[in-house]
Amino acid sequence: MIKAGIVGGTGYTGVELLRLLAAHPAVELALITSRGEKGVEVGELFPNLRGRVNLAFVEPDDAALKGCDVVFFATPNGTAMKSAPALLEGGVKVIDLAADFRLRQAADWERWYGMPHACPDLLAEAVYGLPEVNRDAIRAARLVANPGCYPTAVQLGFLPLLEAGAIDPQSLIADAKSGVSGAGRKAEVGILLCEAGDNFKAYNVPAHRHWPEICQGLVAVAGGPVDLVFVPHLTPMIRGIHATLYATLTDPSVDLQALFERRYAAEPFVDVLPPKSHPETRGVRGANQCRLAVHRPRDGKTVVVLSVIDNLVKGAAGQAIQNMNLMFGLPETAGLEGIALLP
Amino acid sequence: MIKAGIVGGTGYTGVELLRLLAAHPAVELALITSRGEKGVEVGELFPNLRGRVNLAFVEPDDAALKGCDVVFFATPNGTAMKSAPALLEGGVKVIDLAADFRLRQAADWERWYGMPHACPDLLAEAVYGLPEVNRDAIRAARLVANPGCYPTAVQLGFLPLLEAGAIDPQSLIADAKSGVSGAGRKAEVGILLCEAGDNFKAYNVPAHRHWPEICQGLVAVAGGPVDLVFVPHLTPMIRGIHATLYATLTDPSVDLQALFERRYAAEPFVDVLPPKSHPETRGVRGANQCRLAVHRPRDGKTVVVLSVIDNLVKGAAGQAIQNMNLMFGLPETAGLEGIALLP
Amino acid sequence: MIKAGIVGGTGYTGVELLRLLAAHPAVELALITSRGEKGVEVGELFPNLRGRVNLAFVEPDDAALKGCDVVFFATPNGTAMKSAPALLEGGVKVIDLAADFRLRQAADWERWYGMPHACPDLLAEAVYGLPEVNRDAIRAARLVANPGCYPTAVQLGFLPLLEAGAIDPQSLIADAKSGVSGAGRKAEVGILLCEAGDNFKAYNVPAHRHWPEICQGLVAVAGGPVDLVFVPHLTPMIRGIHATLYATLTDPSVDLQALFERRYAAEPFVDVLPPKSHPETRGVRGANQCRLAVHRPRDGKTVVVLSVIDNLVKGAAGQAIQNMNLMFGLPETAGLEGIALLP
Amino acid sequence: MIKAGIVGGTGYTGVELLRLLAAHPAVELALITSRGEKGVEVGELFPNLRGRVNLAFVEPDDAALKGCDVVFFATPNGTAMKSAPALLEGGVKVIDLAADFRLRQAADWERWYGMPHACPDLLAEAVYGLPEVNRDAIRAARLVANPGCYPTAVQLGFLPLLEAGAIDPQSLIADAKSGVSGAGRKAEVGILLCEAGDNFKAYNVPAHRHWPEICQGLVAVAGGPVDLVFVPHLTPMIRGIHATLYATLTDPSVDLQALFERRYAAEPFVDVLPPKSHPETRGVRGANQCRLAVHRPRDGKTVVVLSVIDNLVKGAAGQAIQNMNLMFGLPETAGLEGIALLP
Repeated sequence: MIKAGIVGGTGYTGVELLRLLAAHPAVELALITSRGEKGVEVGELFPNLRGRVNLAFVEPDDAALKGCDVVFFATPNGTAMKSAPALLEGGVKVIDLAADFRLRQAADWERWYGMPHACPDLLAEAVYGLPEVNRDAIRAARLVANPGCYPTAVQLGFLPLLEAGAIDPQSLIADAKSGVSGAGRKAEVGILLCEAGDNFKAYNVPAHRHWPEICQGLVAVAGGPVDLVFVPHLTPMIRGIHATLYATLTDPSVDLQALFERRYAAEPFVDVLPPKSHPETRGVRGANQCRLAVHRPRDGKTVVVLSVIDNLVKGAAGQAIQNMNLMFGLPETAGLEGIALLP
Repeated sequence: MIKAGIVGGTGYTGVELLRLLAAHPAVELALITSRGEKGVEVGELFPNLRGRVNLAFVEPDDAALKGCDVVFFATPNGTAMKSAPALLEGGVKVIDLAADFRLRQAADWERWYGMPHACPDLLAEAVYGLPEVNRDAIRAARLVANPGCYPTAVQLGFLPLLEAGAIDPQSLIADAKSGVSGAGRKAEVGILLCEAGDNFKAYNVPAHRHWPEICQGLVAVAGGPVDLVFVPHLTPMIRGIHATLYATLTDPSVDLQALFERRYAAEPFVDVLPPKSHPETRGVRGANQCRLAVHRPRDGKTVVVLSVIDNLVKGAAGQAIQNMNLMFGLPETAGLEGIALLP
Repeated sequence: MIKAGIVGGTGYTGVELLRLLAAHPAVELALITSRGEKGVEVGELFPNLRGRVNLAFVEPDDAALKGCDVVFFATPNGTAMKSAPALLEGGVKVIDLAADFRLRQAADWERWYGMPHACPDLLAEAVYGLPEVNRDAIRAARLVANPGCYPTAVQLGFLPLLEAGAIDPQSLIADAKSGVSGAGRKAEVGILLCEAGDNFKAYNVPAHRHWPEICQGLVAVAGGPVDLVFVPHLTPMIRGIHATLYATLTDPSVDLQALFERRYAAEPFVDVLPPKSHPETRGVRGANQCRLAVHRPRDGKTVVVLSVIDNLVKGAAGQAIQNMNLMFGLPETAGLEGIALLP
Repeated sequence: MIKAGIVGGTGYTGVELLRLLAAHPAVELALITSRGEKGVEVGELFPNLRGRVNLAFVEPDDAALKGCDVVFFATPNGTAMKSAPALLEGGVKVIDLAADFRLRQAADWERWYGMPHACPDLLAEAVYGLPEVNRDAIRAARLVANPGCYPTAVQLGFLPLLEAGAIDPQSLIADAKSGVSGAGRKAEVGILLCEAGDNFKAYNVPAHRHWPEICQGLVAVAGGPVDLVFVPHLTPMIRGIHATLYATLTDPSVDLQALFERRYAAEPFVDVLPPKSHPETRGVRGANQCRLAVHRPRDGKTVVVLSVIDNLVKGAAGQAIQNMNLMFGLPETAGLEGIALLP
């Protein structure tokens, strides 16, 4: 059994990691830390785990963490970078669900996250944990930067088109809609039920931290610069991201449906729907899956890709476990075969 | 007092017309028809109107309708076109909240709505009831085609840009999100709380009937062809439309904020937010208002317009009353000054 | 025009007071205070008021408040009691929407609210602002304690039964369900959309501060002790309270429907539904109304009363304005005739 | 492997049976019938099952059903009673998730369900499938009547009290709140998102079909007549029932907490919370669990029990599988160990 630790488990990615790891056939949950909830039973904070996860939150403790085979950081940005070096030295593999190791350039990190990077030298080693792009590198990695939720949905949608050179990389638009859990489990007025419920709005249109992350990934695939307009929105639901992607076709003769089906034929967690389909976020609620549909309205110059994930699963905890499976040579789908909950 | 009749008042535009007309200082509600609910008190079907609208639904009756000064059709598509000619002959003004008179060409109607038009000769006379574009024509009209909800939000957002020639009319994208009331009050599985709740999806991406209506309006403003990609989505809330609009700037030197503010300075129901703002649908819930914000991310080539309305008010019943006010020489804002309900 | 001030206007009762007072024909909004939001335009914090209330929040300032005819306190418990004496001395009428003056006994206040009362002498003078019970006293009052939301719904439901001696006062059960806005506009994890959404739970079953307030009112009506079990629940909606009331009938021959209709025949804001009805919270959303239905299942010994209000209107801001109307000799319904918003 | 068939699988209990059975280690899904959706892939109707259940709906076919070891009826009331006799004769075990075999007396059935019973002789044989009461009988049963959702939550809450004689059986009140999925997947206006969303109401207060079912169960446990007032409510969420139960204590010295803990100590799917707790429906969302808390406000004469289940799992499909496990000698928890989804 792989001994797994979780640092900072009181948020939504934390509880989702616990839900999935508790049922993982090859994992033993060793410890979960939280300064604020120290001593509290996990099942008391998260009633779904009562009777299923018999751990209490403990203070972060280097010795205990070093006894793990893998440590997940479900912490605010800027935390993992402080602890990761010591853990890696101690032979522990690290998966960071925050943004600390997502950007390749320390300067980018500092600009977008407003703090100096604590271990810029590790940025080159860290592998961006999008298995559909970096599977082999993840297998060999000690340190994985788990992608953000928007970046997962957007990159998987643009990927086949950019790889095939079927679209103009200067024409990318990602209109993305997120459930409120994407904002985390924080005491903030803006995400109260009475503020975010029965309401719809865009936010951070001038700039959002997922923009550079997405661009970095798309540039790597496109092999050159991209121009991406990214507009995130808050939608009154709990889980789910729906990204609606637009780009200008360079080759109108390409069979878009075949392109997508071929690209993802072997992917266990990416599902291309038949032509004229519309994926729904609830169809992947609780499941580690990205579901895609590709459209070309009126056979025009614009391709439209619809991409849905559960932001807490394929957009966070599930993808982190997918990465762990790869890093430890387990079947990639281990512990990730739960069926989405509908209705 | 203007005597007003409503044909087909059992849907959401019907109940909203009743709510607004019941409080209108210059209107007397004369009758409301419904075949299915004949004899039922309005307040029994719609508890918000109990004690406030003392009418029962009656069968449609030409004589009674001809006694009205104005008749609103809140009926399914294809109904108003059968009754409008006789009413107009009888001197009654007609406002159709359905689509019967929205498209100028009978052939377009037949293609998009799947039935021959009953009075194609009236299409030339009918005025498209978007006051921000057609105010004078509406004042003089006998027959007004009240715009669709998506078309209202999308046109008001693109209008200043197209009028000013600031964008390439071949580059238009409208990513629109609607609350579920936009689908009407119909016994359909897809809009059950358990299907549409906690869920997000696009629909009708290959083709939606509001596309030709929007295009017709934008072509008129642009003075030439437009290429519009229109993707509607269903979002788990009751009221509200949020349209996120994208277009390529032709003149990067234009002051977008000033352009919007100038265009709508005199409009009582269009509100341009300050730079860097994000309008929320709840901010106009129940109010006859379109709220706009204009962005240019990273000073790039793409302009992003955020446009919100309450689909049942500025997108339907409120705009219909705004049109009625114009047609009868009343103050344009009469009966439309209610403040949005928040939270 | 009555000059009205609001102290502490950044919560949900504050924004609702503003929405209603802005449209009140006899009121001039003079000032609204908030330490935290000093200088912020009201319409910036509450987008529904943008363009409708042209005030900015100011720091509480005794001189300015003393220039008002009436001051509403929409503050946390324990605030109004500190400022009310000076205002009253200055001839300003005071309506407290918090709990400071609801309990007659200072000792009760201290036990339930955990702090000494700042002006216990005023408790005897303060009038409990439930117009259906205390109309005349309210008319003469300088200081009104606006009832809590649960207490309004529960008392109006039990009132006719207790007054008529039709039920055993030792048998009262109030099973009450509240929308989340009842918890206020506070940065707390428990009322996040992702915590309170798609969820239902009881809370504070051992003790809730509205219990003594309700009991005090029922005792006064019953003319003797009552035994009340009160169980509040949180339901995943924004506005609305539904109280389901149970009591054992002492006189099975009483005509319950007639009793309720007679009791409330002259009340402008209490609506008794026909037999076998089920009031809905949405039927009063945004309206100053309590709607009641009375049942006696299987003609048994238990009467069941269903009582709904909008917690922010008849349960807070609307009732406060109803009280203001009475205190200033205005028509009781002035400014309170808005129709509920449905859907 | 147990071959399982499902008759009528297009509703919410159907999709939930499929979700759970598809992951059950000892079950092979043999067929699923639906007249209306004949030929449609299961994964097309229910996107969560796409790629996980590779079956299409077929017309009901006796031969195919007789090839099953067990057949679940997820049909409207009145369907199973027509097919069950032949299946039982053919050696197939039958679990009916509708009401056909829940009431012991054919006369009761006819009165409450408005149709004659097709096989009244089977009523005596059918076992009411509440394992916490009838475990041994279920093990030996050929025909199980799966309890209703409300009856499961209410009976499990009253059970310990009635068995112990701790409450007056003439004093029972069940105030129950259900998510909208309890009303089924039917094209009905009343359960549209725009009707049931952001709204709360009681329904069927004069009479609800679950009342006789609950009474029958409570009478059996109490060993004598009971007086139960049952008030169901619709709450704006998808899944979940919260029953708030009230009764008058006969023995105020009983240790309620100990009573409940002892009664359910060995039950795998009933969880008694610590004193002063409040169970939440989301804590059991998707899980086969009933969670209980017992209160005695102010040490008074009334006991309050809070009982939550997921109406589609412990209130329907999960409990049906629990019954199947018992009938086939499998571990009772087989296939039912999924953790609730939160948030």
